[in-house]
Amino acid sequence: MTLENLQFRLASRPVGMAKDTDFQQAAEALRELADGEITVKTLYLSLDPAMRGWMNDAKSYIRPVAIGEVMRAGGVGEVVASKSPKFAVGDVVSGGIGVQAYWQGAATDKTASFFKIDSKLAPLTTWMNTLGMPGMTAYFGLLEVGQPKAGETVVVSGAAGAVGQTVGQVAKQLGCRVVGIAGGKEKCDFVVKELGFDACIDYKTGSVRDGLKEHCPQGVDVYFDNVGGDILDAVLTRINMKARIVICGAISQYNNTTPVKGPANYLSLLVNRARMEGMVVFDYADRYHLGVAALAGWLKEGKIKSKEDVVQGLENFPQALTMLFEGKNFGKLVLKVA
Amino acid sequence: MTLENLQFRLASRPVGMAKDTDFQQAAEALRELADGEITVKTLYLSLDPAMRGWMNDAKSYIRPVAIGEVMRAGGVGEVVASKSPKFAVGDVVSGGIGVQAYWQGAATDKTASFFKIDSKLAPLTTWMNTLGMPGMTAYFGLLEVGQPKAGETVVVSGAAGAVGQTVGQVAKQLGCRVVGIAGGKEKCDFVVKELGFDACIDYKTGSVRDGLKEHCPQGVDVYFDNVGGDILDAVLTRINMKARIVICGAISQYNNTTPVKGPANYLSLLVNRARMEGMVVFDYADRYHLGVAALAGWLKEGKIKSKEDVVQGLENFPQALTMLFEGKNFGKLVLKVA
Repeated sequence: MTLENLQFRLASRPVGMAKDTDFQQAAEALRELADGEITVKTLYLSLDPAMRGWMNDAKSYIRPVAIGEVMRAGGVGEVVASKSPKFAVGDVVSGGIGVQAYWQGAATDKTASFFKIDSKLAPLTTWMNTLGMPGMTAYFGLLEVGQPKAGETVVVSGAAGAVGQTVGQVAKQLGCRVVGIAGGKEKCDFVVKELGFDACIDYKTGSVRDGLKEHCPQGVDVYFDNVGGDILDAVLTRINMKARIVICGAISQYNNTTPVKGPANYLSLLVNRARMEGMVVFDYADRYHLGVAALAGWLKEGKIKSKEDVVQGLENFPQALTMLFEGKNFGKLVLKVA
Repeated sequence: MTLENLQFRLASRPVGMAKDTDFQQAAEALRELADGEITVKTLYLSLDPAMRGWMNDAKSYIRPVAIGEVMRAGGVGEVVASKSPKFAVGDVVSGGIGVQAYWQGAATDKTASFFKIDSKLAPLTTWMNTLGMPGMTAYFGLLEVGQPKAGETVVVSGAAGAVGQTVGQVAKQLGCRVVGIAGGKEKCDFVVKELGFDACIDYKTGSVRDGLKEHCPQGVDVYFDNVGGDILDAVLTRINMKARIVICGAISQYNNTTPVKGPANYLSLLVNRARMEGMVVFDYADRYHLGVAALAGWLKEGKIKSKEDVVQGLENFPQALTMLFEGKNFGKLVLKVA
């Protein structure tokens, strides 16, 4: 039996939001493996805001996806064929699978950089959330760049999203007051009632500035920014002396066809001797195991939760990706492929 | 003889650039001193971009000047009468004199915070420049926030200005490549030929972005920003991994009647894991003596220079202040009062 490999390849560079027609579906037959190679069957794909940036032909922290190339994506899969001593058939692995039903190549491929995961430690979807890139981003971004101290106020935007939920929960574990910013009552209720945030500001129904005034009476010491735009500007008006702003992302700006909106209130950094610093999770790769150990421990003890939003079917990839930028996902967005 | 004290009091909050009519001239007779008080005769006043911010009724690192109050200014004066053991007649002091011919009050006044200066160590004008607030701002801002290492590239805007000239010269002492940004050929020639910068970009005659490409072939490791606006945005496109941007001021934005222009390229901080941090010189007050010692040493050895632009006459204060924002001063702007 020759298996068909459904793939989504980048067909054109999107202008604004990525559309169906920016991807081309292809179906290739799987080939025989050469020595040292493996075939990984995709189980889940991780859908992340950063994917939009990878589609632009611009210098960034990672090279752009080429036109005609399989769209880049992280995910979890099962090794279904192996001519490598590194992985055995049946191993569950995490890595850069791409938006396709199967991945084939050298077991040691650096771009994919597969590693075995322990599916007994947590459900597979958690390995793309709290124990995956979003969790590592939250853990190292908060601890290393945000450097919160017990008793300080930590604000996080995209609070119900993949990174935000873990940022807030880890900050609570550290003894901070935690205030989320999210879109809609359902998400806000979730982060407060389910995840234990102290408060959450619904940016869709009220002024973020007023919300910060109400819920951060001691000001803001750490702001973990996933969204940029007007929300970043609002938080800048409420920061404390020596505050730390972690620039993790700017989802509000990724589909811009006009120039990015810079933070007009950035001079608050001067007045407050505060810091705004960017972070990219890959820099902490040699310590991921420490992040996984800490987060898995808290998960096991029930101190933190991992919330995923699972969409079914590889064929629904373009529509699922759009959900991220419309704020329609509730928790870490995952595509179930098989 | 009763001496008259000519004063400039804030008459109204300026919209945009401060105008003559935003100040009211007053002439008061000097009064008899009470015990513990001194009279200081103003010799020089320091004119600084920060003065524009002090005129706004906005929360900042220092309270606004009140309407009707003598305009705040630092300066150097001579004690001409004393009923305090702290200062003797003939002492030369530096402190918050205000825009007036004489200062009267308690020798221990905290707002004025006068201290004796050694007029043999350097000319009086240097005490408002390299050995005064601008020098301290440059020294501590560069060393503590910018943290340059030998061999790195340091860029400084307002390069011929009070802070910029010292930032660049100190960075050269530390073994850095130093590139200034200034307005006009004369200023650029000065910082390269007289102060020893490696290069200077004239923002008035060419693209700052192209200039950075040409003169910073290794990228930018430290950017000391005195101007904000488009120049900050241009530098953000050329920063290196782990770059440090010192937010010291934003003279291009201080007279805005429209909102401040935020740095549209701030996501370069993310891509480059870079940092943007604000600083206010007052935080280093307990170490000013260390900054003065280091800078006075380099001055004495001829390793650095102090360039002042002296305007004559207290009555010319409003026009002289305007020069700052039009980039018309060449070096630290000082008003000679007596």
